[in-house]
Amino acid sequence: MSAEQLAEAVNAVPLVDHHVHGALVAELDRPALELLLTESDRPLPAGTTQFDSQLGFAVRRWCAPLLDLEPHVDPDDYVARRAELGAAEVTRRMLAASGVAHHLVETGFGGADVLSPAGMARASGARADEVVRLESVLEDLVRSGASAGQLPERFREALAGRTASAVGLKSVVAYRHGFDVDPRRPTDAEVVAAAGEWLRGCENAGRVRVDHPVLLRFLLWCGVDRGLPLQLHAGYGDPDLDLHRCDPLLLTDFIRLVEPTGVDLLLLHCYPFHRNAGYLAQVFPHVHLDVGLAVNHVGARAAAVVAESLELAPFGKVLFSSDAFGPAELHYLGAHLWRRALHRTLARWVDDGEWSTSDAVRVADLLGHANARRVYHLRDASA
Amino acid sequence: MSAEQLAEAVNAVPLVDHHVHGALVAELDRPALELLLTESDRPLPAGTTQFDSQLGFAVRRWCAPLLDLEPHVDPDDYVARRAELGAAEVTRRMLAASGVAHHLVETGFGGADVLSPAGMARASGARADEVVRLESVLEDLVRSGASAGQLPERFREALAGRTASAVGLKSVVAYRHGFDVDPRRPTDAEVVAAAGEWLRGCENAGRVRVDHPVLLRFLLWCGVDRGLPLQLHAGYGDPDLDLHRCDPLLLTDFIRLVEPTGVDLLLLHCYPFHRNAGYLAQVFPHVHLDVGLAVNHVGARAAAVVAESLELAPFGKVLFSSDAFGPAELHYLGAHLWRRALHRTLARWVDDGEWSTSDAVRVADLLGHANARRVYHLRDASA
Amino acid sequence: MSAEQLAEAVNAVPLVDHHVHGALVAELDRPALELLLTESDRPLPAGTTQFDSQLGFAVRRWCAPLLDLEPHVDPDDYVARRAELGAAEVTRRMLAASGVAHHLVETGFGGADVLSPAGMARASGARADEVVRLESVLEDLVRSGASAGQLPERFREALAGRTASAVGLKSVVAYRHGFDVDPRRPTDAEVVAAAGEWLRGCENAGRVRVDHPVLLRFLLWCGVDRGLPLQLHAGYGDPDLDLHRCDPLLLTDFIRLVEPTGVDLLLLHCYPFHRNAGYLAQVFPHVHLDVGLAVNHVGARAAAVVAESLELAPFGKVLFSSDAFGPAELHYLGAHLWRRALHRTLARWVDDGEWSTSDAVRVADLLGHANARRVYHLRDASA
Repeated sequence: MSAEQLAEAVNAVPLVDHHVHGALVAELDRPALELLLTESDRPLPAGTTQFDSQLGFAVRRWCAPLLDLEPHVDPDDYVARRAELGAAEVTRRMLAASGVAHHLVETGFGGADVLSPAGMARASGARADEVVRLESVLEDLVRSGASAGQLPERFREALAGRTASAVGLKSVVAYRHGFDVDPRRPTDAEVVAAAGEWLRGCENAGRVRVDHPVLLRFLLWCGVDRGLPLQLHAGYGDPDLDLHRCDPLLLTDFIRLVEPTGVDLLLLHCYPFHRNAGYLAQVFPHVHLDVGLAVNHVGARAAAVVAESLELAPFGKVLFSSDAFGPAELHYLGAHLWRRALHRTLARWVDDGEWSTSDAVRVADLLGHANARRVYHLRDASA
Repeated sequence: MSAEQLAEAVNAVPLVDHHVHGALVAELDRPALELLLTESDRPLPAGTTQFDSQLGFAVRRWCAPLLDLEPHVDPDDYVARRAELGAAEVTRRMLAASGVAHHLVETGFGGADVLSPAGMARASGARADEVVRLESVLEDLVRSGASAGQLPERFREALAGRTASAVGLKSVVAYRHGFDVDPRRPTDAEVVAAAGEWLRGCENAGRVRVDHPVLLRFLLWCGVDRGLPLQLHAGYGDPDLDLHRCDPLLLTDFIRLVEPTGVDLLLLHCYPFHRNAGYLAQVFPHVHLDVGLAVNHVGARAAAVVAESLELAPFGKVLFSSDAFGPAELHYLGAHLWRRALHRTLARWVDDGEWSTSDAVRVADLLGHANARRVYHLRDASA
Repeated sequence: MSAEQLAEAVNAVPLVDHHVHGALVAELDRPALELLLTESDRPLPAGTTQFDSQLGFAVRRWCAPLLDLEPHVDPDDYVARRAELGAAEVTRRMLAASGVAHHLVETGFGGADVLSPAGMARASGARADEVVRLESVLEDLVRSGASAGQLPERFREALAGRTASAVGLKSVVAYRHGFDVDPRRPTDAEVVAAAGEWLRGCENAGRVRVDHPVLLRFLLWCGVDRGLPLQLHAGYGDPDLDLHRCDPLLLTDFIRLVEPTGVDLLLLHCYPFHRNAGYLAQVFPHVHLDVGLAVNHVGARAAAVVAESLELAPFGKVLFSSDAFGPAELHYLGAHLWRRALHRTLARWVDDGEWSTSDAVRVADLLGHANARRVYHLRDASA
């Protein structure tokens, strides 16, 4: 098997994007697009532009040709061409070029502004399934009027209903509290008491956002009881979180408590703690990881991050995701930069005489789709 | 634009060294020089030499030719030639070769043993401005006889006077306590009470060194009120600090509290937490970082560290500094190793087809001087 | 001196493996071998194999030829050939090929299932000395019937006897509690009280395993008093530990307290905290580090880890170890992957014009054996 065959194989892997959001429907002017090229929710200082970042450079380099522009085109020209084509056409082109065969769409954020799983399937011609965010199910339930006393039972019912056809669950406890939460399952009585406190807080604040640690633990354990693979946001994200409290190592005791249930845990993103996540994936049979989100935002450095994620973790425990949210450029780049990074990493090991080409191809298949199919019990997208 | 043009552009960037100390005036014998090639303040074990380190190798490799010696010269020959030329001539050669156009000199350490900003300007033919260390202003005030009750008001007056022509401020709270300090602004009453305690401690200890957490917080907030860009030592430094308490992520709540004031924060050094600092620089508009100090001490590994600092941080938020303290070799190497590291990093991205050459040149300008000029409101050194 | 000479020099370094365990005596079928290719003590999920890991690939790539097989051979063929040759012959081949001249064998784990230091010397034709695990000495003492009141005095006697010919000591406080332990020396009265508690716990649990923090501190300080170099497991290991509590930076206060005694501390493995360990090795004269264990488990990524360990640490403070435990493949790979990684790292610095070849050769000698000989007061193995 030759070097060309490795390149072809990596480019042809029919990816399962095991954690992605629906592409944004709206047209975007330059300020709106810039704010979606960062995890920040604040504008940059005067005199700077979000295009001056690894992700901004990657958009100009790799997405421009998909809009019939030269690589490295000026940001204004890029935005103008984007508007000319229209968001729907841009989305169609980006999703088609990504080579993603199956999207596992996390639906807890964005609402009607983003494509549903069905919309993603239509826009891409690929398959799409749903991953349900635990916190959203609770917040929807409370908005529909659940009382504290009813909450444990009604949440379990709501979750069962909401996940009837879902393939996985997602927790954002990292955002809402941090992994330095008590890992133990709370009793229903504790949940009812916490819900009373929290509901009063919601009324005072005029908004519904679960951040009570007892309720967050309740959601985690309801997720475990539901038995679907459970995704956990870990590491890097927006400024709502305290990054040092999102090191997945802080989940070690929770991971130990979950182990006997056999439920698979998927640590998402993990940057800059991806080596720590690799340790957890080696020593705990039910722990998996990806470096989604980071691959997009580190751009030209993606190969370094991907290589670091392939140190301690067994190759059956590392998955691909884009964690794309917003413009479909992120869906495309998530896949494209990952393929480039993985190819560079594997080709180097083959060139150095460390790995065989056929092993490299096999590992690309594991990471790109086979592991996701095994963990989420998906049928073969290419079959 | 060609590969040669990128190399020339990086070598020609008229650097602003936004955090540097005055070069040491004294002549140095070998033991004295060795102790300045490490952040340790202890001698090495018998049978070892500080020249056997990345920094020691870099001195022999890159500084020797500036003293008319062969690269990789023996340490004894290096020290002998240094003595022959004299410290003033060595300093002149090193500063001239550094290509630094503007030094922002932090004056809180070294006193009469090191060149003042004016002395740095004379020795280098470049511009020099001052960065004032908050803790030193307080310690000088107390040595001049301030009482606890007067301390808040008199410190504010002293800081205003001391910083009349300064371009920035510096905090060493990392050394004196760690970033795990309460981030909130203390009241004057709390400051007076803390000052009483602390002054009694100073009398007992026979030395004046601010390490009371309430006073350190007071200094930070006086710095914020002063409105100048505020530098914070972060990460790696001498054995006075507890490195795990110097992770800039531990400053997250302080960063959030400062954000509404619009004051810029500059995280210095950051190693080995520079990826964490890059996250903060992406999500908070007023946070910037450099990898000064580390670039010198990791020597041949500088390109790895520089590349890691260019992952999440927008390119408008990363600055150059040497953090040189002591022999002017550190001033030269800080600039030289950084240029080499940046060139290697950018050239690789251009060669790999990720970046355009003109973007690479533009980023070198941002990092090398333009960002510093914007943040510190400096006039263009080359104008 | 030429590039070939560097390659030859690195390959010929007569290694001192300063932290290794005896090779396993038993024959191994595939499941048994797989469980020894991971730090996990759990089986992998169905449908995956431990051979799909960096270490598994390295066994197939580098160990197969020593068993007269093609590189990258199928795992089943590897296991079959291994059985055909027999464990003793495999061990003999692996140890001979490792080029290790002197094994410092930590004897606290494995008992009669693994080769003793004398057995390692016989199987390898190299020298072997013993490193004694502090916790094992206490556990053996208690099994022989020591009471709480006698424990401090009897432990000191037992340690003196047990280490009469030992060259070093080892602590696994990282496993038994974590480095977030009170660093101070406990009084004998505190030890007696803690021993009473602990012995009652042992009786209830029906097993003897020191995990009482006061006793662990007692062992550390008895180790310091004994005056031999003290090895500390740090970083990565099996799932018994909480990795975030094994960051060697958490030992900073203990390191400070030990410094006046002049006892050398050796931080073992350290991954993924090896940069933190490098900082400690730079600033504290008595601190040393290695990246053993990790080098085996990251396989094709070993050069990245080795390079990261050569940033802040002076070259007189970095040592080689394999931390091999189990099949002798780990003893061979520990040495082989380290030589490859070190050669790649040094050759790159030479090619890039940063280092001279003769400096690179000298550093390989320091890391490979000279530092260990200095720290452990070993005679020159090649003399």
